[in-house]
Amino acid sequence: MFKVNDNFLKLPGSYLFSTIAKKVNAYSKAHPDKTLIRLGIGDVTQPLAPAIIDALHKSVDEMAHAESFHGYAPDLGYEFLRTAIVKNDYTSRGCEISADEIFVSDGAKCDSGNIQELFALDNKIAVCDPVYPVYVDSNVMAGRTGVYDLSTERWSQVIYMPCTKENNFVPEFPKEQPDLIYLCIPNNPTGTTITKAQLQEWVNYANKIGAVIIYDAAYEAYISEEDVPHSIYECEGARTCAIELRSFSKNAGFTGVRLGFTVVPKDLKSGEVSLHDMWARRHGTKYNGAPYIVQRAGEAVYSEAGKAQLKEQVAYYMKNAAAIKSGLTEAGYEVFGGVNAPYIWLKTPEHMTSWDFFDYLLENANVVGTPGSGFGPCGEGYFRLTAFGSHENTKAALKRLKAL
Amino acid sequence: MFKVNDNFLKLPGSYLFSTIAKKVNAYSKAHPDKTLIRLGIGDVTQPLAPAIIDALHKSVDEMAHAESFHGYAPDLGYEFLRTAIVKNDYTSRGCEISADEIFVSDGAKCDSGNIQELFALDNKIAVCDPVYPVYVDSNVMAGRTGVYDLSTERWSQVIYMPCTKENNFVPEFPKEQPDLIYLCIPNNPTGTTITKAQLQEWVNYANKIGAVIIYDAAYEAYISEEDVPHSIYECEGARTCAIELRSFSKNAGFTGVRLGFTVVPKDLKSGEVSLHDMWARRHGTKYNGAPYIVQRAGEAVYSEAGKAQLKEQVAYYMKNAAAIKSGLTEAGYEVFGGVNAPYIWLKTPEHMTSWDFFDYLLENANVVGTPGSGFGPCGEGYFRLTAFGSHENTKAALKRLKAL
Repeated sequence: MFKVNDNFLKLPGSYLFSTIAKKVNAYSKAHPDKTLIRLGIGDVTQPLAPAIIDALHKSVDEMAHAESFHGYAPDLGYEFLRTAIVKNDYTSRGCEISADEIFVSDGAKCDSGNIQELFALDNKIAVCDPVYPVYVDSNVMAGRTGVYDLSTERWSQVIYMPCTKENNFVPEFPKEQPDLIYLCIPNNPTGTTITKAQLQEWVNYANKIGAVIIYDAAYEAYISEEDVPHSIYECEGARTCAIELRSFSKNAGFTGVRLGFTVVPKDLKSGEVSLHDMWARRHGTKYNGAPYIVQRAGEAVYSEAGKAQLKEQVAYYMKNAAAIKSGLTEAGYEVFGGVNAPYIWLKTPEHMTSWDFFDYLLENANVVGTPGSGFGPCGEGYFRLTAFGSHENTKAALKRLKAL
Repeated sequence: MFKVNDNFLKLPGSYLFSTIAKKVNAYSKAHPDKTLIRLGIGDVTQPLAPAIIDALHKSVDEMAHAESFHGYAPDLGYEFLRTAIVKNDYTSRGCEISADEIFVSDGAKCDSGNIQELFALDNKIAVCDPVYPVYVDSNVMAGRTGVYDLSTERWSQVIYMPCTKENNFVPEFPKEQPDLIYLCIPNNPTGTTITKAQLQEWVNYANKIGAVIIYDAAYEAYISEEDVPHSIYECEGARTCAIELRSFSKNAGFTGVRLGFTVVPKDLKSGEVSLHDMWARRHGTKYNGAPYIVQRAGEAVYSEAGKAQLKEQVAYYMKNAAAIKSGLTEAGYEVFGGVNAPYIWLKTPEHMTSWDFFDYLLENANVVGTPGSGFGPCGEGYFRLTAFGSHENTKAALKRLKAL
């Protein structure tokens, strides 16, 4: 008689964004006359840049002829894309990463969910609180997180690193020693970040205690300040302690196109065992590559035209971020983030809970955001808005928020 | 100090097709003057059908405008695709499957690797021998397979069901009771199949012992005989014991486009726990949907034009299969499969081992096939050729084989 993986049953409720989608759909159904403005999930709204559209059409045409048709992709991804990544994202920033350390995938969500498979089940993870839910949930499913305590909303075997306005959203080294440390910088959900010097301390710490940092840099394109690192490999010693996850979703609007990559340096080892080899084995066994046409689209992101067009696209969203930040500040809200990231993190007014504020905004302003508590207990009393709407919608949402 | 998942270290050698790719690349490098013909991995060679190319161009254009741009896809896949799947693959065959039981993915390889996550680690799997390596390897990585015995080439906690010419390649119910049963029909690698009546017995057996059948129907488009089932849901009672995996790779040439789906009926339960809900949770947490443009391409597979064009494409490959089968038979080989599947399974001549025959063909005929032993110990002494080449290459390969 088969038995299920009962770690799944420990998960409280459904995946955060599925819950929000259900709530919003129910509200829409009950109020078909209301026009909702969605600043909830981090989904982009601007169309793909012309350089990317061109690359897609061109590669679709290639697929129409036997001579230029492409079947299964190489295990790690096409050389043309991995080379463009290395040149533009690493060599140009002085990071020593080679093309065969890049693993192309269909997005950072899959990679952040799958990467834990490389580690023993008794390894202890440390996460920021609040945090992107996938890091914890994927470890719950694997059975690495112990027991969930409903009163504290915490797992017994997870080390939480609070990030609140009290510590300026900078995590401190935990008292208990972790084996795996998830860091997302610029941060989702708080929109805040840390300096290169601060990240260097984390790299030194990880090397000292023999931990691996899983570094999610999905939002690096939004960095505007000089001393914020774009890659963990800007720090000395990161090649022996860090895996970096990257996404094309936010810098190039690929949320519906699906492309990402993971960097596993060959120097990252446990004794003689290379994590690079292990990830290659996983990729070869359980994954079959990103579509050829999508990898060509990814290559176009690094073309001269693509870079110029996407710089404008990022600036478009960051204009929203600045408008939300200043608008809400004027309206008396306490607001964080939005300078090096497309997320604005605000304190809910009058000590409302995050979900109460979610319902309040949905019902009274028809604006959809994300409750901070959905990202962890220290997110309680906070709320996330994204800058990924259109200028018009963002302006309209601000007007509604100010009118409350 | 972090520790690795040492289940990975138990895997003997690398993933079969990665090993072959390395061997072939080494040979090519050493003999740049030789023209290799690849009938090894099951990769297609014909271009995408015109109806699919049209759908891709059209949806790429949609992505170029804010009004028709598509970001994150719905968790289970787009309704338009799931509806087309249900109508054409299930309702039309009298199978009772609804659109919300379809989970769209980026391919059957990922799904067949990931599906084991739903089950307890002490569940025992049964596989045909020989078998597609992903079923076993993904269970090894999860820690479900016990110890590998180098002399028998078998895992202590895996139940093997031999499929050889002696039993007409039809697996028998195992002596020991399994919890999960992997069946791939039409079969990869042997190219053989079973009748609907035989599959009904497997469904009855699974329901009786409380096992789940993971049914891989990736090759169903190649079925030419009447009494061979296209879906396990043609059998009575399959809704309470079977998960079905489907691929667009072989029926529509999507090996480089990446699209598949998994069917998890809502009646499939362990007590009160629904596997459908669990898979939905996994999809929501660790996956972010197939690209919009690829899902539109999938929809075009089911258009009238698409169906007609793909019928021709399948016929093209099956003409190869028939030519290989008759050509090799004439040349004195003992040959199986190739009637309801694009694979030909042959006995190696003069009791050569599978890898010896691989090297022999590579070096003397410059033809690349797949050694049967790579699929399991009962595949030793067999060899797989695929029908996915062009007519010209298939003809040329046959000529070389006959000349040996």
